[in-house]
Amino acid sequence: MRLKIAVLAGDGIGPEVTKQATNILRAVAEMGGHEFTFVEGLIGGTAITETGSPLPTGTLDAALECDAVLLGAVGDNKFNALPPDKRPEAGLLQIRQALGGFANLRPSIAYTALSASSPLRPEVTKDVDILFVRELLGGLYFGAPRWWDRDSNEAINTMRYTRDEVVRVARVAFELAGNRRQKVTSVDKANVLEVSQLWRATVTEVAKDYPSVTLEHQLVDSMAMHIMNIPRNFDVVLTENLFGDILSDEAGVITGSLGMLPSATIGGAVNLYEPVHGSAPDIAGTGKANPLGAILTAAMILRHSANLEQDAKAVEAAVNKVLDAGYRTADIARGQQPGQTPVSTQEMGKLVHQAL
Amino acid sequence: MRLKIAVLAGDGIGPEVTKQATNILRAVAEMGGHEFTFVEGLIGGTAITETGSPLPTGTLDAALECDAVLLGAVGDNKFNALPPDKRPEAGLLQIRQALGGFANLRPSIAYTALSASSPLRPEVTKDVDILFVRELLGGLYFGAPRWWDRDSNEAINTMRYTRDEVVRVARVAFELAGNRRQKVTSVDKANVLEVSQLWRATVTEVAKDYPSVTLEHQLVDSMAMHIMNIPRNFDVVLTENLFGDILSDEAGVITGSLGMLPSATIGGAVNLYEPVHGSAPDIAGTGKANPLGAILTAAMILRHSANLEQDAKAVEAAVNKVLDAGYRTADIARGQQPGQTPVSTQEMGKLVHQAL
Ligand SMILES: CC(C)[C@H](C(=O)O)[C@@H](O)C(=O)O
Ligand SMILES: CC(C)[C@H](C(=O)O)[C@@H](O)C(=O)O
Repeated sequence: MRLKIAVLAGDGIGPEVTKQATNILRAVAEMGGHEFTFVEGLIGGTAITETGSPLPTGTLDAALECDAVLLGAVGDNKFNALPPDKRPEAGLLQIRQALGGFANLRPSIAYTALSASSPLRPEVTKDVDILFVRELLGGLYFGAPRWWDRDSNEAINTMRYTRDEVVRVARVAFELAGNRRQKVTSVDKANVLEVSQLWRATVTEVAKDYPSVTLEHQLVDSMAMHIMNIPRNFDVVLTENLFGDILSDEAGVITGSLGMLPSATIGGAVNLYEPVHGSAPDIAGTGKANPLGAILTAAMILRHSANLEQDAKAVEAAVNKVLDAGYRTADIARGQQPGQTPVSTQEMGKLVHQAL
Repeated sequence: MRLKIAVLAGDGIGPEVTKQATNILRAVAEMGGHEFTFVEGLIGGTAITETGSPLPTGTLDAALECDAVLLGAVGDNKFNALPPDKRPEAGLLQIRQALGGFANLRPSIAYTALSASSPLRPEVTKDVDILFVRELLGGLYFGAPRWWDRDSNEAINTMRYTRDEVVRVARVAFELAGNRRQKVTSVDKANVLEVSQLWRATVTEVAKDYPSVTLEHQLVDSMAMHIMNIPRNFDVVLTENLFGDILSDEAGVITGSLGMLPSATIGGAVNLYEPVHGSAPDIAGTGKANPLGAILTAAMILRHSANLEQDAKAVEAAVNKVLDAGYRTADIARGQQPGQTPVSTQEMGKLVHQAL
């Protein structure tokens, strides 16, 4: 098996965690006799500093020639004063759009070993296994018109969806639910927003093609509450772009840390893989970053781009094993118990490698 | 002291909980020799059924002649197929706009007696006391253009804010923080949205007039996580309309139930008071509804419209006392302990009355 992966490490803790992820991919390749090659590229604040652009053409061209793109994290407080289209995040939004993946898969799993690091009670998080399917190319992120007029002192963003955009992402959610617990929860604000009414009507229609999957609708405000109260009730959660951004971060609370959450964006020319966490500039370079989100993202590459399901499972099992053995980066050390060992980013990566 | 209150009980559990709230107001009036009069009006689904409109002119005219409006809840699944402007919720949005209150205050307090009913660990919720200040007349709720075109199969909503709209609600947040723990956390998505950039720049500017108050900015996705992880870190949380809708519902998790949360909307011609919970049609008429959100909302009427701070505190103390004595409606009975007594909506109302 051959796989060419663009590695865009980005800002803050991006490079540190990405390095651990590529180490794991290298190990998998070696063990299985696969040929994984890695092409590095600049993105985000680092790219602005070196080239003036948050997504240099060279990066995009290289990415489009790869089988998968692994992105670390983008964002740097240095650029806070810039308008959205000049910021590091613009590089992320541009590459998402250019690669064309519209379905962002964000699993949120409660690890038994980590139940002490969640602010939620263990009986609430027990056995939780949610898969968010977040639409990634529509809504307020990309809708026009968008502007901040400094003369009139007014600003506008546009939440826009077409039926086709909803259909295609809804199909992904129903397909995935078919292989899981047969339930899709679609999130909207249909009691107020016309866009949500289109969303709800379209999802309801798509559901007819998947008679074995149960569809339920939840308003985004209620959902923000239900996810914390009864997370076990949810299987696949389907959302528009911004609602998915908010709710999937909130779901980091279930796992105990955002640092644990991987994501894969599928459906486009090239799949894009990114841990859910941000660039966390405050801890960059301190060895405190949790590489498990990036490593679990690497497992998603194996699953969705390399068709190596067994290897994906093996990486996930290795992560579980290391957690069960008590190893903890700072973010998952809440309520530290005897028998737990604090480790750095690099040590955590090595431990997973060994467990593999 | 004289006070004329429009009571718009609305749909579902609205009438049940409102009744307990007005009982408490009557008791306060009697004890203090005040003259509170109540004018009833139709709103929401009930109003649609009886008059064809979710906000009949009679209701609005009456409300505008009162000193305060107490609203129960609106929303009825019967009308789910209607477009936003024909639904029960349209009545709520229209009266919010007509009364002109732009600052929706939503306190989220952790009651010690209820710590077992929160899915969060007691050590996380301990001493939490957050006040959300949600902008209530702008953003996606009211922005135009807004449409769902069934021919082109496309839909649009507009998130719009002007500087003045942000200034006036920010001032309310800073004033309130000045009487509390001197901290404002402003929530936005400034790394993506132009509207959020206007929001952040404006709030930063307003902050200069309040040198003793610390301002921090949080992205809405991170905030959805932080509120659950470290709720004690927050004092006043300032948000635009939809972000406040989502985050304040999420914060119901801290208190243990949405049924506990009151709200007051100030700054307009007539203040509007509503519990945060919805119409909960599934439990309407079963006696399961928690009237404490509505009763605490009545306390906010005493505080913000009647200037009876002592009486407001007395009602809040009575609620605390009843909770300490172990009385629980269904929503706050999670993890029921010996020494707790399940009670109905009406019984809970009576108990607070007695404690007063
Ligand atoms: C960095 C930011 C633009 C991004 C988003 O909002 O999509 C991030 O929060 C995420 O969830 O991937
Ligand atoms: C009923 C609905 C329109 C309303 C809102 O979204 O504002 C409710 O959720 C609230 O929070 O008061």
